Amino acid sequence: MVVVMQERATDEQVQHVIAQLVGMGFDVHRSTGALRTVLGAVGGTREFDPRLIEVLDGVQEVLRITEPYKLASRTFRPENTVITIGDLRVGGDEVIVMAGPCSAETEEQVETTTAAVKRAGAKVLRGGAFKPRSSPYSFQGLGEEGLRLLRGAADRHNLKLVSEIMDLSQLELMEKYVDILQVGARNMQNFTLLRELGRARTPVLLKRGISATIEEWLLSAEYILAGGNMNVMLCERGIRTFESYTRNTLDISAIPVVQKLSHLPVLVDPSHGTGRRDKVAPMARAAVAAGADGLLIEVHSDPDHALSDGAQSMFPNQFDRLMAELRIIAPAIGRSICLETVARRGWGV
Amino acid sequence: MVVVMQERATDEQVQHVIAQLVGMGFDVHRSTGALRTVLGAVGGTREFDPRLIEVLDGVQEVLRITEPYKLASRTFRPENTVITIGDLRVGGDEVIVMAGPCSAETEEQVETTTAAVKRAGAKVLRGGAFKPRSSPYSFQGLGEEGLRLLRGAADRHNLKLVSEIMDLSQLELMEKYVDILQVGARNMQNFTLLRELGRARTPVLLKRGISATIEEWLLSAEYILAGGNMNVMLCERGIRTFESYTRNTLDISAIPVVQKLSHLPVLVDPSHGTGRRDKVAPMARAAVAAGADGLLIEVHSDPDHALSDGAQSMFPNQFDRLMAELRIIAPAIGRSICLETVARRGWGV
Amino acid sequence: MVVVMQERATDEQVQHVIAQLVGMGFDVHRSTGALRTVLGAVGGTREFDPRLIEVLDGVQEVLRITEPYKLASRTFRPENTVITIGDLRVGGDEVIVMAGPCSAETEEQVETTTAAVKRAGAKVLRGGAFKPRSSPYSFQGLGEEGLRLLRGAADRHNLKLVSEIMDLSQLELMEKYVDILQVGARNMQNFTLLRELGRARTPVLLKRGISATIEEWLLSAEYILAGGNMNVMLCERGIRTFESYTRNTLDISAIPVVQKLSHLPVLVDPSHGTGRRDKVAPMARAAVAAGADGLLIEVHSDPDHALSDGAQSMFPNQFDRLMAELRIIAPAIGRSICLETVARRGWGV
Amino acid sequence: MVVVMQERATDEQVQHVIAQLVGMGFDVHRSTGALRTVLGAVGGTREFDPRLIEVLDGVQEVLRITEPYKLASRTFRPENTVITIGDLRVGGDEVIVMAGPCSAETEEQVETTTAAVKRAGAKVLRGGAFKPRSSPYSFQGLGEEGLRLLRGAADRHNLKLVSEIMDLSQLELMEKYVDILQVGARNMQNFTLLRELGRARTPVLLKRGISATIEEWLLSAEYILAGGNMNVMLCERGIRTFESYTRNTLDISAIPVVQKLSHLPVLVDPSHGTGRRDKVAPMARAAVAAGADGLLIEVHSDPDHALSDGAQSMFPNQFDRLMAELRIIAPAIGRSICLETVARRGWGV
Repeated sequence: MVVVMQERATDEQVQHVIAQLVGMGFDVHRSTGALRTVLGAVGGTREFDPRLIEVLDGVQEVLRITEPYKLASRTFRPENTVITIGDLRVGGDEVIVMAGPCSAETEEQVETTTAAVKRAGAKVLRGGAFKPRSSPYSFQGLGEEGLRLLRGAADRHNLKLVSEIMDLSQLELMEKYVDILQVGARNMQNFTLLRELGRARTPVLLKRGISATIEEWLLSAEYILAGGNMNVMLCERGIRTFESYTRNTLDISAIPVVQKLSHLPVLVDPSHGTGRRDKVAPMARAAVAAGADGLLIEVHSDPDHALSDGAQSMFPNQFDRLMAELRIIAPAIGRSICLETVARRGWGV
Repeated sequence: MVVVMQERATDEQVQHVIAQLVGMGFDVHRSTGALRTVLGAVGGTREFDPRLIEVLDGVQEVLRITEPYKLASRTFRPENTVITIGDLRVGGDEVIVMAGPCSAETEEQVETTTAAVKRAGAKVLRGGAFKPRSSPYSFQGLGEEGLRLLRGAADRHNLKLVSEIMDLSQLELMEKYVDILQVGARNMQNFTLLRELGRARTPVLLKRGISATIEEWLLSAEYILAGGNMNVMLCERGIRTFESYTRNTLDISAIPVVQKLSHLPVLVDPSHGTGRRDKVAPMARAAVAAGADGLLIEVHSDPDHALSDGAQSMFPNQFDRLMAELRIIAPAIGRSICLETVARRGWGV
Repeated sequence: MVVVMQERATDEQVQHVIAQLVGMGFDVHRSTGALRTVLGAVGGTREFDPRLIEVLDGVQEVLRITEPYKLASRTFRPENTVITIGDLRVGGDEVIVMAGPCSAETEEQVETTTAAVKRAGAKVLRGGAFKPRSSPYSFQGLGEEGLRLLRGAADRHNLKLVSEIMDLSQLELMEKYVDILQVGARNMQNFTLLRELGRARTPVLLKRGISATIEEWLLSAEYILAGGNMNVMLCERGIRTFESYTRNTLDISAIPVVQKLSHLPVLVDPSHGTGRRDKVAPMARAAVAAGADGLLIEVHSDPDHALSDGAQSMFPNQFDRLMAELRIIAPAIGRSICLETVARRGWGV
Repeated sequence: MVVVMQERATDEQVQHVIAQLVGMGFDVHRSTGALRTVLGAVGGTREFDPRLIEVLDGVQEVLRITEPYKLASRTFRPENTVITIGDLRVGGDEVIVMAGPCSAETEEQVETTTAAVKRAGAKVLRGGAFKPRSSPYSFQGLGEEGLRLLRGAADRHNLKLVSEIMDLSQLELMEKYVDILQVGARNMQNFTLLRELGRARTPVLLKRGISATIEEWLLSAEYILAGGNMNVMLCERGIRTFESYTRNTLDISAIPVVQKLSHLPVLVDPSHGTGRRDKVAPMARAAVAAGADGLLIEVHSDPDHALSDGAQSMFPNQFDRLMAELRIIAPAIGRSICLETVARRGWGV
C-alpha cells in the first residue's frame, strides 16, 4: 500500500499516519520528496480497509498495490483452469455452448427444445426451475418438477445440465439433478449462499451482477474458491448503463480483461445481456470473436408462448444458423465449436 | 398498453399483432392514422411482458401505461403510510434518526456508542450482527452475541433496534431481538427472502440496490406488501455511477420521486451512500432538506479501531453537531427532529 | 403522443390537458376506461417538448410515439446508405478499415505508419493534426503541418484521409486536406459546428459522445443531414460506465441497434473504446462479428515514443495479425475485408 | 508515480521499465519486496500518460500520485476563491442565487420574470440568447436581440447577468452584454473555447458535463486558469446514470468533494439537474444544505407557454416560497441568503 500525503501535510500528521499503520501490522518506508511525503506500507492483512487511512488528516490518497482476491487471480495460477465434467471440458480449446429454455414449462416443450439445441451443437442444456422474477405477480417456475423434466431431457440427449439455485435451502435438491449450479446476477453477492457453494463439489457458474465491477465479481468467486470448490466459471450477462434501448449493455471487453486477471473460464449470456431476440446473434458472435470460453443462450421451441423471457429466446432455426456462423468465427482465434457434432452431421445427421 | 406500429407495417403484420394481443386476453382498439397505426390494448394481466409484442414484425414500440406495482403505489393509497412501533412513528412529521455502529463488536463499544447517539437525539439504534462483506477474508460479525449486545443497549436507553437480516435462515432468530428488519442493498432482489418477510409481522427497512431503478425498488417492496406485511420503509443508500471519488452517488432526488410514486416512508443512509466520514454531514443535511422521512447514520465511539466501516463512521461529537444542524433545517419544510430530547436537554441533560 | 392520466385525475384536469394540447396544435382523441383516461394526440410539431404536458396536474405519464429525428431514421430511408468517396464505398459489403497514428508527429513517423497500414489492408489513413486533450499541458498537435504530412502520405499510398475537426474556424483549412471530417466524441453536441458541417459537402464521421444515448447520437446526425449533407457515417467509441478497468465500455450492441433504427453506416473505434493496446484486437474482432461497417484503429510505427495515445496504439505487426483474423471472421456474416489488397499481396506485394 | 510490477515479473522486465522511465525524465527508486517489485518515479512532466508504462510487459498497475491539475487545486491555493463582480461576491458567506428564464423570448416576458426574481432575492439574472438544443428542429434562441433584452432588464433591476456562450465566434459579442460567461455542459470539453476564455477577463461559470468526472471538470477549469483568467466558478447540473425517472441525477455529493479538492466556488443548477419543476425546490434546498456557494434556477413568468424548458421552469410564486425556505436552511451551516433584500422587504418593498 502506498500512502500519499498532501503537499502541506505537517510532520505531526505524517507521524500519526505512520503510527496508525504500524499499529495495523504494517512495516512502513518513508520517502520525503521536495513536494510531498509518500509512505510505502508492507505487510498487514488482505482484508485491511484502505479508507481507514484515507480519512486521516493530511492524507491525500491511499493506493492499494495488491488485488484483494488471491485464489481467483492469475498470479496464483498462471495457466488457464479447465473444468472437467465427464467428457465436457470448459475452458479448453472448444467454445462450449449451453442452450435451452428460460424455464421448464411442460414435458413436450423441454423435449422439443432440448432435441433442437443438441442437434445444433450445444453441449449443455440450460433451463430454470426456480425463477427470480422482479415482480411477485410473474410465473415463478415449476420447482422440482422442472428439474425432473430437464434432467430427463438432458440424459436422453447426452447433455450436461445447468440450472439456477436461488437460495441456500435448495442446495441439496439441486445437487440431485444438475451438473452445474448457476448463481444468478442478483445473487452474486449473496455471501451466505456463496460460502455454502464453496463447500459443495458441484461446479458453479457465477453470473456477474448488473452493476458489479470486475473486482467484485472475482471477489465473489473467491468466496467459493476459498471454501475449496475450485470449479468456478464466470459468466458476463450485461451491465447497467444509461443506455436504455437494450435492457443491459453487454460488456464484451470484460472477456479479455477477466482472462488477464484470472485463470477461470469466462462465458457470456447474450440473451439476458440484450433482452431482445434480434440482438442475440450479433452479440453471441461478438463474444466468441472476443475470446469467450462459452455461451449461454435461451432457445425455445415456441417463444411466442413462453411463460418467461419469450422475447429474448431464439427460435430453433435461428439458433441453428447462429451456430453455423460461430463455427466460421472460432478458428480465427484458434478455437473450435462442437466439432464432433459437425462431423456427425456430415455423415447424414 | 399502447402498441405503435412502424410506418411501413403491412396490414398483415397489424393483424398478427392484434391476434396475439387478443390471445393474451387484451381488448384491442385500432387507430389508423395517416402515417402509422396505433393499437390500444386494455385488460390482460399485470405480469405481462411487453417485450413479447415488441419483437413482432412491424412493431416499432410498446408503451406500458400502468405501473407494474400496485400496493406500493400512491394510486392505491393516496395518503402517507405512517409506521408505528410502540411510541415511534416513521413517516409522520418527525424526521427519525437511526444511528449506531456498523457492527456490534464488544459490550463496551455498543454501550458507549448507544449512549452517545441517544443523547444526541436518535430514536432507533442501528447495528449489525451478520455482515455482508464483499471479501471472504473480512470480519463477518458476531452473530447472535451481537444481537444480544445491541438489544441490551437499546433497552437500557429506550431505543428501538434495527439490524440486517442476510438470509432466510436467520429470520426466527432476528425476530426475537429486533424491532425493524433491515434488508441490505445486495439482497434487494433476494425474492425468496422478500416473500418470507411478507409473511412476517416485523416492520422491514428495504434498502435500494446500488443499481436498482426506482421501479425495481418499489417492485421489491411489492413482494413484501403482497404477502401481507404493510410496514415497509424504503432507504436510499447510493447508486453506482461513473464517478469514483465517492464510493457511490447518493441519489437525493430519489426522495421526492419516491414520495410522488408511493405512500411508503423513505429514509436515507448517507454513511454507505458516500463511504467517507467527512461527506456524511453534508449529505445528511441535504437529505433532510429534500424531505427524507429519516436517516440511518453510522456512529462509532472509536472509529479508528472499528472492525468494519470505520472510515465512514462519525465520531460522537460530529454526530452531535450534525443533529444540531438538522434541527435548524427540518422546520424549513415543516418537519421536526427529536423535539422531546431537545426539550429535555434544555432542562439540563 | 399518448397522455396517460392518473387514476384519480378529475374531469377538470383532463379538460385542462386537452385544452393545452389543442392550443399546441394537436388533435386529441379521448378514451375513458374503467380505471383511467388516456388521451391520444396527433399532429403538433416534431420539436414539441413532452415534459410540458408531463408536469400538468393529473398527468401520470406522456409517451412519445415518433422518433424525434426523421432524415436519419430507417423509416425515412429503408435501404442502407452507402457513402462513395472516389473508389471507396462505406456501408457496402466490404468492412472498411481506417488506421494510422493518433497524431501526425514527424514526416518519417507518418510515412512509416502509413506504409504499414496500407500493406495490411487499410483503405483510409486516420491521423490527428488538431488534438482535443483533456489537460492544457498535453501535446496539442502539429496543426496545418500535420495535415500536410498526412495528405502527402495518403496520396503516396493511395489511401483516403480522415482527420478530426475541433472547431468551426478550422473548416476551410481542413477541407483542403481531408476526405472525411471526423467529429470527436466531445463535439458530438457542438451544434454550431454540426450545423456548418451540414452545409459542407465533405463526408462526416460522427463519433458518439461518451454518455450520449443512441437517440441523441442520431439527433446530432440529423443536424448534419438537415443541412443537406447526406454523407454521414457514425462511429461508436465507448460509453462511460461504472467499470473503470477499461477507459470506457465499448458498446458493441450499439451496432445492431443503430442498424435497425437508421440507414447510416456504423463504424467502431476499439482504440479509444478500450484505451489499452492489448484489448484492441479482441474488440475489433467483436465489432466485425457483430456487423460493423468499418473500424478506426490507432497504429503507430513506434508506440512507446508516441506523443499521444501511445498506450492504445498497435504495433504494425499486431495490426497485420488482426487484419488476418478479421478476414476469417467477416465472411461469417457475408462481409469481406480488403479483398483486392489480399489478392495483390498474393502477387508478391 | 508508483509502478507496481507483477509478482512473476522478470528482472529483465523490471530493467526495461526503469529504462523507459529514465528516458521519460523520471528519477526511479526501486524497492524489491518478498512478493513483488515496486518502482517509485519522481520528476517527469505533468502531461505524462501513465498508460504508456501500464502496457509494458510485467507491469501490474501504475498509480499516479499527483493530480493532473495544478492551479485549480486547493494545494495551490488553500483559501477559498471569492469572485468579485461589482458589489457581488461569489464564494463568500452569502449563497448567491441566479435566476431567470431559460431563453429570452419577448421584452415583456424578460421584464416580468426579472422583476419577479429580483423581488424574491436573486442577485444575478440568468437567461439564454443562444440555445444549444439537441434537436435541429427546436427553438434556437433570439441571438443578440435576446442579449439586449436581458441586459436591459438586468440594469433596470440592478442585477448582474449570466448567459451561455456556445462558440468562440460569439465571444466578442457576449462580452459586450454579460457579466458572467456560462459554458454549458456540452461544451465543458470544447478546449478551443476554453483556451480563449482563459485570455478573456470576464468571469466564467463552467458547468459540469453530464458524464464528466470531477477530475475532468477541474482539468477544464485548469484550461481557463492557465490562460490567466482566475475568475472561474463551477456548476454541477446533473450526471447521467441508469435512473431515468429524472432527466439526470443531480450529484449533490460533488459539492463537498469539489470544496475539498479545489478553492473555486461551486454552484448547483437543480433545474437542468432534474428536468421537472416539481423536483427543483427539494433539490435546491438539498444543495444549500450540502454547502453550495450558489444556485442557478429557471423561473418563467408563464412556464406553460415558454419556448424552451417550460417543464422545468418555476412559477414566480414557487420561487418566492423556495427562497423563504432557503433562508431558514442557510444559517444551519453559517451561510446567509440575500440579507439586504430581506431587510429592504421589511421596509415595505
